[in-house]
Amino acid sequence: MDKNVIAVDIGGTNLRFGVVKKTGQIIHKIVRPTEADAGRDAVIENIINGIDEILALSKIKKSSILAISLATPGFIDIDKGIITFSPNLPGWRNVNFGKIIKNNLNIPVTIENDANAAAFGEKWLGAGKNSRNLICITMGTGIGGGIILDNKIWHGERGMAGEIGHITVNPDGPLCNCGNYGCLEAYSSGTGIVNRIIDAMKKGKKTSLLSIIKNGINEITPEKVFFAAKKGDSLSLELVEDAGKYLGIAISDFANLLNIKTIILYGGLVSSFGLFSKRMKEEIIKRTIPSFSKEVRVLKAGLKQDAGIIGAAGVVFQKKGELRF
Amino acid sequence: MDKNVIAVDIGGTNLRFGVVKKTGQIIHKIVRPTEADAGRDAVIENIINGIDEILALSKIKKSSILAISLATPGFIDIDKGIITFSPNLPGWRNVNFGKIIKNNLNIPVTIENDANAAAFGEKWLGAGKNSRNLICITMGTGIGGGIILDNKIWHGERGMAGEIGHITVNPDGPLCNCGNYGCLEAYSSGTGIVNRIIDAMKKGKKTSLLSIIKNGINEITPEKVFFAAKKGDSLSLELVEDAGKYLGIAISDFANLLNIKTIILYGGLVSSFGLFSKRMKEEIIKRTIPSFSKEVRVLKAGLKQDAGIIGAAGVVFQKKGELRF
Repeated sequence: MDKNVIAVDIGGTNLRFGVVKKTGQIIHKIVRPTEADAGRDAVIENIINGIDEILALSKIKKSSILAISLATPGFIDIDKGIITFSPNLPGWRNVNFGKIIKNNLNIPVTIENDANAAAFGEKWLGAGKNSRNLICITMGTGIGGGIILDNKIWHGERGMAGEIGHITVNPDGPLCNCGNYGCLEAYSSGTGIVNRIIDAMKKGKKTSLLSIIKNGINEITPEKVFFAAKKGDSLSLELVEDAGKYLGIAISDFANLLNIKTIILYGGLVSSFGLFSKRMKEEIIKRTIPSFSKEVRVLKAGLKQDAGIIGAAGVVFQKKGELRF
Repeated sequence: MDKNVIAVDIGGTNLRFGVVKKTGQIIHKIVRPTEADAGRDAVIENIINGIDEILALSKIKKSSILAISLATPGFIDIDKGIITFSPNLPGWRNVNFGKIIKNNLNIPVTIENDANAAAFGEKWLGAGKNSRNLICITMGTGIGGGIILDNKIWHGERGMAGEIGHITVNPDGPLCNCGNYGCLEAYSSGTGIVNRIIDAMKKGKKTSLLSIIKNGINEITPEKVFFAAKKGDSLSLELVEDAGKYLGIAISDFANLLNIKTIILYGGLVSSFGLFSKRMKEEIIKRTIPSFSKEVRVLKAGLKQDAGIIGAAGVVFQKKGELRF
């Protein structure tokens, strides 16, 4: 009988658990709170409880599980199964995550970066289904990414490949959370857009956003900026278009460097794609070498929130030779 | 008996021919003028004559040659052996180069982009000897590059990977030869440095360079700008440091995207490395993600002018399974 993979997508807010077949079909799925603020041990307990729960719910025996695959935010030593550092999980530093879970459940454990897992999910069964090579850009609070080359996740020297948010798109641009200036994340992430509009408001720029927020600038969210842009607020529109412009510059860099044509956008900001896609495309056409620029395609993710669990499971099936492209 | 490869590195000025053993040793080498301005047929004749000449000089029989490997500037369809377009070879468009040479000499022909060949040479026997992954940046009149991932040349979708010169390093930067603004080539190539100093002079900026050139600005070369910078000319120094700054920004982008730590600099401008390396390193340290920035190493090429022929030969040996890493 074919064995299944239990995949867990560990987000800052939610844990998503799925029992995934080797066809990629999710046969059971549950979502539980991460409780990241409660600290490392609480999160690990939540993960173990969730796996026990999905095993019980799906009436699957441990022995029929090929592996547990954890899609984890932050920097990971894949070979050792260690989370080196995770900005979104407070208190996680050099955690031997794979071993802890394995000791508790006695099932082999695989660990993968969450953006890489999502990219692999999109490559396997999502928008990148027919693409041998792709870059999946995660656009949410921050910006991350996963790179698929020759049908496999590209990890780089230390498993840190895909730090797309900190590509410099304008050396003298706005301050980024990382301490640098002009990173892609400072323009095209949720945080970047919110920070930039607050800065502009402090400098006295007019915006109709003021009529939506009642209790101060802390209420501003990327969604509200997108909403104001849609309603014709010129400051919001300018910053949303900038998000598209600098995203386009970054994509043209990737196309010029790697000669990759498939770019997939994933994450919360993608629902507002229509508001920034025109400026993005203009930059791609303008800045990618002419003989290739028209081939570059930017697609919205196909699997949405399931990309992480499907991809994390797929990585295991590929490693075991049960998934070939 | 081990067969050898005849490698030809086709430059805008010179053709470099080498008979290369599977150890990478060059047993014979000749250099002949390309005569690119005389047109396509003249260049092809020069290549065929050069191959005949090196065969005669080295007293090697055609039957003992594994293949001819051509390192060619421009865009290449590697599978078909066609040069799609080459900016440095006037009149070359969709030339079935592999077939022409093969028909004339009756030896199998392999074709590879020259920057890729140089990168592979450096990986095999040069500064990148111990590196599984590297990017080799060619800094000359323009800027090009070759990418080695997992010990192999990374070609991308259409064989155009490594267009490093047209990475955007400053969206509002100076005009590049490609028609865009702020490409790496517009700051850090020979042409870029010369164009920028001429622009500055036209705007009335003072420079001691005027005392070196006698017959007008057409005499300005990158070497003269480097010389003036070394002598303390502040405008020249500023522009040379800018070349380093923007090179550093591009390198940090590559490190963040691909998590690659070995960067090799190749080409004419590298002899002035000392003048721009400090600014380059500052940007790399500043802009690469902290957990990786100190691992990034920028090395000068080890094989110099032979990298192209050694690499072109190596590609054939690797393809035949005679070169393994």
